[in-house]
Amino acid sequence: MFSLPSSTLRLGISSLRARARRGATDPRRMQRVADTCRRLLSERGEANSIAIAAHLQRELLALPPEQLVGFFELLEQQFGPDPEEVLQAAQRYAEAPTAEHLIRLTTAAEPPRQELLRRLNRAPGGTAAIVALRRVLLTLLPKRPDLAAVEADFQHLLSSWFNAGFLQMEQMDWRSPAELLERIIEHEAVHEIAGWTDLRRRLQPDRRCFAFFHPQLPGEPLIFVEVALVPDMPGAIGPLIDPASPPLAPRHFKVATFYSISNCQPGLKGVSLGNFLIKRVAEHLHRELPQLRTFCTLSPIPGFTAWLRQPHDWASGAAKPRLRERLQRADAALRERFGAELTGMPGDFTPDAAPPELRDAIELLAHYYLAHESVTPRGDPVARFHLGNGARLERINWAADTGRKGLKQSLGLMVNYLYDLGEVEERHDRFVHGEVVCSKRIAQRL
Amino acid sequence: MFSLPSSTLRLGISSLRARARRGATDPRRMQRVADTCRRLLSERGEANSIAIAAHLQRELLALPPEQLVGFFELLEQQFGPDPEEVLQAAQRYAEAPTAEHLIRLTTAAEPPRQELLRRLNRAPGGTAAIVALRRVLLTLLPKRPDLAAVEADFQHLLSSWFNAGFLQMEQMDWRSPAELLERIIEHEAVHEIAGWTDLRRRLQPDRRCFAFFHPQLPGEPLIFVEVALVPDMPGAIGPLIDPASPPLAPRHFKVATFYSISNCQPGLKGVSLGNFLIKRVAEHLHRELPQLRTFCTLSPIPGFTAWLRQPHDWASGAAKPRLRERLQRADAALRERFGAELTGMPGDFTPDAAPPELRDAIELLAHYYLAHESVTPRGDPVARFHLGNGARLERINWAADTGRKGLKQSLGLMVNYLYDLGEVEERHDRFVHGEVVCSKRIAQRL
Amino acid sequence: MFSLPSSTLRLGISSLRARARRGATDPRRMQRVADTCRRLLSERGEANSIAIAAHLQRELLALPPEQLVGFFELLEQQFGPDPEEVLQAAQRYAEAPTAEHLIRLTTAAEPPRQELLRRLNRAPGGTAAIVALRRVLLTLLPKRPDLAAVEADFQHLLSSWFNAGFLQMEQMDWRSPAELLERIIEHEAVHEIAGWTDLRRRLQPDRRCFAFFHPQLPGEPLIFVEVALVPDMPGAIGPLIDPASPPLAPRHFKVATFYSISNCQPGLKGVSLGNFLIKRVAEHLHRELPQLRTFCTLSPIPGFTAWLRQPHDWASGAAKPRLRERLQRADAALRERFGAELTGMPGDFTPDAAPPELRDAIELLAHYYLAHESVTPRGDPVARFHLGNGARLERINWAADTGRKGLKQSLGLMVNYLYDLGEVEERHDRFVHGEVVCSKRIAQRL
Amino acid sequence: MFSLPSSTLRLGISSLRARARRGATDPRRMQRVADTCRRLLSERGEANSIAIAAHLQRELLALPPEQLVGFFELLEQQFGPDPEEVLQAAQRYAEAPTAEHLIRLTTAAEPPRQELLRRLNRAPGGTAAIVALRRVLLTLLPKRPDLAAVEADFQHLLSSWFNAGFLQMEQMDWRSPAELLERIIEHEAVHEIAGWTDLRRRLQPDRRCFAFFHPQLPGEPLIFVEVALVPDMPGAIGPLIDPASPPLAPRHFKVATFYSISNCQPGLKGVSLGNFLIKRVAEHLHRELPQLRTFCTLSPIPGFTAWLRQPHDWASGAAKPRLRERLQRADAALRERFGAELTGMPGDFTPDAAPPELRDAIELLAHYYLAHESVTPRGDPVARFHLGNGARLERINWAADTGRKGLKQSLGLMVNYLYDLGEVEERHDRFVHGEVVCSKRIAQRL
Repeated sequence: MFSLPSSTLRLGISSLRARARRGATDPRRMQRVADTCRRLLSERGEANSIAIAAHLQRELLALPPEQLVGFFELLEQQFGPDPEEVLQAAQRYAEAPTAEHLIRLTTAAEPPRQELLRRLNRAPGGTAAIVALRRVLLTLLPKRPDLAAVEADFQHLLSSWFNAGFLQMEQMDWRSPAELLERIIEHEAVHEIAGWTDLRRRLQPDRRCFAFFHPQLPGEPLIFVEVALVPDMPGAIGPLIDPASPPLAPRHFKVATFYSISNCQPGLKGVSLGNFLIKRVAEHLHRELPQLRTFCTLSPIPGFTAWLRQPHDWASGAAKPRLRERLQRADAALRERFGAELTGMPGDFTPDAAPPELRDAIELLAHYYLAHESVTPRGDPVARFHLGNGARLERINWAADTGRKGLKQSLGLMVNYLYDLGEVEERHDRFVHGEVVCSKRIAQRL
Repeated sequence: MFSLPSSTLRLGISSLRARARRGATDPRRMQRVADTCRRLLSERGEANSIAIAAHLQRELLALPPEQLVGFFELLEQQFGPDPEEVLQAAQRYAEAPTAEHLIRLTTAAEPPRQELLRRLNRAPGGTAAIVALRRVLLTLLPKRPDLAAVEADFQHLLSSWFNAGFLQMEQMDWRSPAELLERIIEHEAVHEIAGWTDLRRRLQPDRRCFAFFHPQLPGEPLIFVEVALVPDMPGAIGPLIDPASPPLAPRHFKVATFYSISNCQPGLKGVSLGNFLIKRVAEHLHRELPQLRTFCTLSPIPGFTAWLRQPHDWASGAAKPRLRERLQRADAALRERFGAELTGMPGDFTPDAAPPELRDAIELLAHYYLAHESVTPRGDPVARFHLGNGARLERINWAADTGRKGLKQSLGLMVNYLYDLGEVEERHDRFVHGEVVCSKRIAQRL
Repeated sequence: MFSLPSSTLRLGISSLRARARRGATDPRRMQRVADTCRRLLSERGEANSIAIAAHLQRELLALPPEQLVGFFELLEQQFGPDPEEVLQAAQRYAEAPTAEHLIRLTTAAEPPRQELLRRLNRAPGGTAAIVALRRVLLTLLPKRPDLAAVEADFQHLLSSWFNAGFLQMEQMDWRSPAELLERIIEHEAVHEIAGWTDLRRRLQPDRRCFAFFHPQLPGEPLIFVEVALVPDMPGAIGPLIDPASPPLAPRHFKVATFYSISNCQPGLKGVSLGNFLIKRVAEHLHRELPQLRTFCTLSPIPGFTAWLRQPHDWASGAAKPRLRERLQRADAALRERFGAELTGMPGDFTPDAAPPELRDAIELLAHYYLAHESVTPRGDPVARFHLGNGARLERINWAADTGRKGLKQSLGLMVNYLYDLGEVEERHDRFVHGEVVCSKRIAQRL
Repeated sequence: MFSLPSSTLRLGISSLRARARRGATDPRRMQRVADTCRRLLSERGEANSIAIAAHLQRELLALPPEQLVGFFELLEQQFGPDPEEVLQAAQRYAEAPTAEHLIRLTTAAEPPRQELLRRLNRAPGGTAAIVALRRVLLTLLPKRPDLAAVEADFQHLLSSWFNAGFLQMEQMDWRSPAELLERIIEHEAVHEIAGWTDLRRRLQPDRRCFAFFHPQLPGEPLIFVEVALVPDMPGAIGPLIDPASPPLAPRHFKVATFYSISNCQPGLKGVSLGNFLIKRVAEHLHRELPQLRTFCTLSPIPGFTAWLRQPHDWASGAAKPRLRERLQRADAALRERFGAELTGMPGDFTPDAAPPELRDAIELLAHYYLAHESVTPRGDPVARFHLGNGARLERINWAADTGRKGLKQSLGLMVNYLYDLGEVEERHDRFVHGEVVCSKRIAQRL
């Protein structure tokens, strides 16, 4: 399942299942895994853990996925801290917070499975194996909340190891290995890449693609971002990804637009990568192309229509009375067009043919959704990501993505978030404290 | 002080001091450092920590070393866990060891300075900075035991990051960059390299040199080992490092002898490196040269004469009566030759001219020292290292190192430890449980 | 036209023509080119030729293709040897063949344009420019036989510079740069590559692709060969290039089959490349995969049906009377099936449904064509290439390529040539002296 | 002798001789070499020459050097053009200069040994072998003028293959492989490098070292140049090569001074390398460091004292009467100081202590030697090299090299030649036509 990084990481649950069917289930296997874990963590394992770690890796590989649950249960039940010992250590530290007492406390409180995973990591392929294990664990978690602490340990270690300081940013272009480019095609999650011709256009000099790599997972992009270098802040996705568009001459590069960002490793969910990648790319482009004045995104609003359908009590709420009233009217206009439950949305809606009143209504609601709701968990996930990174809500674009998915998610709207490298720290801070920083244009609309 | 990896890591205390004299001491600096630390650890720091981390790095760089103590005190006093909070969390976890309670406990018990260092690591040069900081901290520790818990956190993080799985082994030869080879000359700690001609001989095909590197410290060897490929297990160091010796033809390579291992990074003291390097090199050579039958060391016994001078109560002790008696007689013979307090040791001692009785006495005591004392903290550090790695005590060699240092440390004795890759795990285990595994030849001498 | 290797080399005549239409024709341009050529060849040019060469390159680039003819005429008329001077030098040398006379003769007889081209080569991009110029020259040659000596000089120099000793063989696989793989798709001349999926299959571990590169044309494959590793000598092309076929496990690799070889540089026509590539690949695979027993081709017979249609006087000829008679009968059978002039060939011919007599007739004629005609200029060009390289005519395969092109060229027949590295020298020699070395099986059919 | 490039090229005559003594002389060897040469050149060799070429290489390697002469004689006697055939071809071409006749003539006139060497070059190590052979041939030439035409063929081919377009310029610094740097120490011919510490200083950021490499001789520098980046045109060599001098900050780099240029390959004598290297380096530095205003040399005058000792008829000669008179007086002053035959030169001469009249006399003669004699074969070889490259004679420096060699060659004088990239072509041209371009300062002194 996870012996070799490349094949491992790509294995999905379905393939694990298929393998499980082939391999016979053996009740003694789990016992052997438990023994090997104990051996790896013993003093005996300290000096020789590479051999034992490699052995454990092979055993876990041979385990059918049904029994992998058993492995996580084992970690949960037998490799957690001893409550008695921690309590004693905590009491002593509370009485006298000396270095000695603190070291004992820290040691007692750290779940032994963390050290177990660190030792598993010593064998070749260890990091890939741990990422693959966490991928499986995350799929189990919704039904097994008792494994949350085990999962927290995986995330804790992977966050430390995939620390931004250890990641290498690399540009990918038409000279990159085909194998690598194939992964880009496969993982592009925002605006699908239709094939090699489509990809080729996205790697021309006025389009850029950057990815993070980790030294332990060579050839495996962790996350990648696609950038369009354009003369003006773009208001629609079509021209950016049109394979037939002619490349722009460098002297016209004024705006760097991040138009797609995709994670490649489900096993690294929750590890901060995108935030660091965007900023590192922006700095890199800023140095390479001093003529760039603006760094922004062209982003979808994936949660908009779903949020519209939720019950809203426009009468109450944080908004000022005048705004509340306008929102109510806008909501009513939508229900008139798309049915009381908005079930007819998007239906045959075409932004270009929408009457001005409807357009006004939709835009108002979108402005409110992004500028007010983003500070709450109900907010749009993409908005929360960029605003949380310190970006500014810049402009909402009508008829920006008129494909099926775009209409379904957001009635064709897209949004620009602006990254101003000198301001991101302060804006992030304001967002953390409940404020969405907007452009003047947007502030005036609300 | 630690902005750039290469220059940083080499900076010794003296240079820090020199810099301190130049820079004016500024009482407000420490306050600014404390503020930056807090900012880096705040929510605000989460999204922007690279800029803040780089800022903190620069501030620490500008700190005169006297004030670096202040930084470690700051970590100790303001970035440790809250005793009250840990105690509460431990009590709850003791009452009900649920995932939720455990996550809270683990979070509460981990000193916040660990996360602070992880964030500091995000900026370019962060890892080098942390290694350099620990180097300073280790020099302070003997007089400041209160900083032990801070030091433990540094070691904890560096052990996780310099995990064997993240290290890259590379062979160094005459085609390596001169810059790198210069570091080898500089750091060789066991058998000094006199210059480039001397080094050149140690990089011929029958001599090998391997080092560990970390992706974050490119061009910086962490530790390196030198190997001689010879026809027989060597009994003296002279021929192995003789720059004038003719290279041996590959068909005569039968024994790989590790004759020197040197750490290059004082800031990584206590992080397991040597153990893994020896085994990785042994495996590598085993694959490259299947004709190799034996992997052993030719090692110094740095603690021998110092141990001889310690008071010994030969009459009691673990040894059998017959052995006790022989040790007493041997001890007496030494004191006859070198004075009652052994103050005349080594004096003008020349192993080749020693009378047989004296040689027998010295060898017996050396066998006892290595085969019995190694399991105790009084034991020889080199012996404890190799035996703890699972090596076997194989042979003691008379007149093996007749240089000044060799005579002074061990009256010219050296020792071979045997690495049998199939046995190291079990032998390590026996050593942990108090047994030194010896060759038959040595067992018979005791 | 040829400033940058990559773009240059790909430029076809049509694009040159298009450019010509855009650029105005300027009668003084040719004069300037002539002046620059003279300056480059003068003593003044000796020390500074890089600047002058770059200048000449730019001037040639700006020339419309119509005027390129003018450049070749210039080379022909003004940069050939002086007949008078050569005659004198030859006379002196004939009278007294001393070193001095010989040096004078060699110098006088070498066309000065050779040195001119050598100097043109000194500027960056020079080699690419010369290859591109020759490409144009070769297209002019059929109508301009007076330029043959100029062409001979180009070939002479390029043969020296693209000497096998200067070529680098590289394997191409799925990790190669996409840009390079795109060239493979583009240049595959034997069995078209339908797209990236098709290509991907041809780069799996049981299919190999090797190319020659020259240090001066980085990223530009000169020629490449595709190899299938299979259990038995293949009798049909279909399975070898089927994108859906499962890769074969290495333990079954017994036969390396060269199934396609394609030149990428028309400007290098006549420079020996393929011969050296096949042998270098065979040696490489022989070392990498000692289990390979057989190196052979699966080759088309592009000239077969065209040869059949030529008038044959079967009654006379080198063949023995019995064979002549059989050939006559076979020829008659064909004409019965496909019309007296064979104009109905291939028509609706399907090898699998052919009556045994027809199959016998076609196979006999193919055997004769390959085994007898190959030593004459009438012979099949692919046969002459492989037999001239020292391969053996091994087996003719019925219904081996039933695609349109295969049926049209050779009624679906393909042929295996066998490369036995220990025998190629002798077999080449026999071929040069008029003998086609055949397998027993083939010899018996004739 | 020349199987492997690296070892081969370094082999001197002495080592060849030593080997010869060991290997028995075998009269049949030469016959075998002759046979192999013929086979390599035959049609049989055309398709298989790599194997035959490798065979010939091994045979030549096994030849004792005494018999290598035999190989060159073989080339001279049996692989030259046929006088009869050339004469006929020349006559036909003179009668009718058609393409066909010219091709026949060119083919007939080219010595077949050229093609033989091209084929020898096809085997691995071929280029290195040919360079090594020419090295031996050059040592034989003074006593064997009959081999001059053979030598001319070697030079012709090597000039074509080591064409500036095929050479790669690389900077060497402290990160270069030690093996490569060792070659620099070994080959520095102008200002000896005393060891690694000395070398290290010459590779600091204000000192540069660039070399030419050929793809076929990897790791073998062909020629290298050392450059000092300084604030002013330097007047003495001492400070430039002082290992203890502190490196200069880049903002003070104003003048790039070429202070040493050394050939590494005696077998490439007469192949233009230095000229191209200096210009390529100057362009490279000009791009990297736009603040550089001046590119010049600090050069020795190796022929000065030897020229002074030659008989001079000052009374006649090209110089104007006034100058002739001054030269005569200066000459007399020297003979007064150093004896009538100048046998006492340099003796205990110390430039710093020289009386002004003597200094004036020496400087005048030096100016005349460089500014007038350089256009004749009697001129200084270094002056002729730089002036022939298009440099300007800029300044003569008193007490510039007061080491033993400097005093002996030129009484401590050195000279700056100025490279003005925009002028080199025209200046070269003027030099070719008999004019030395001087600075105003120098012109005024004469």
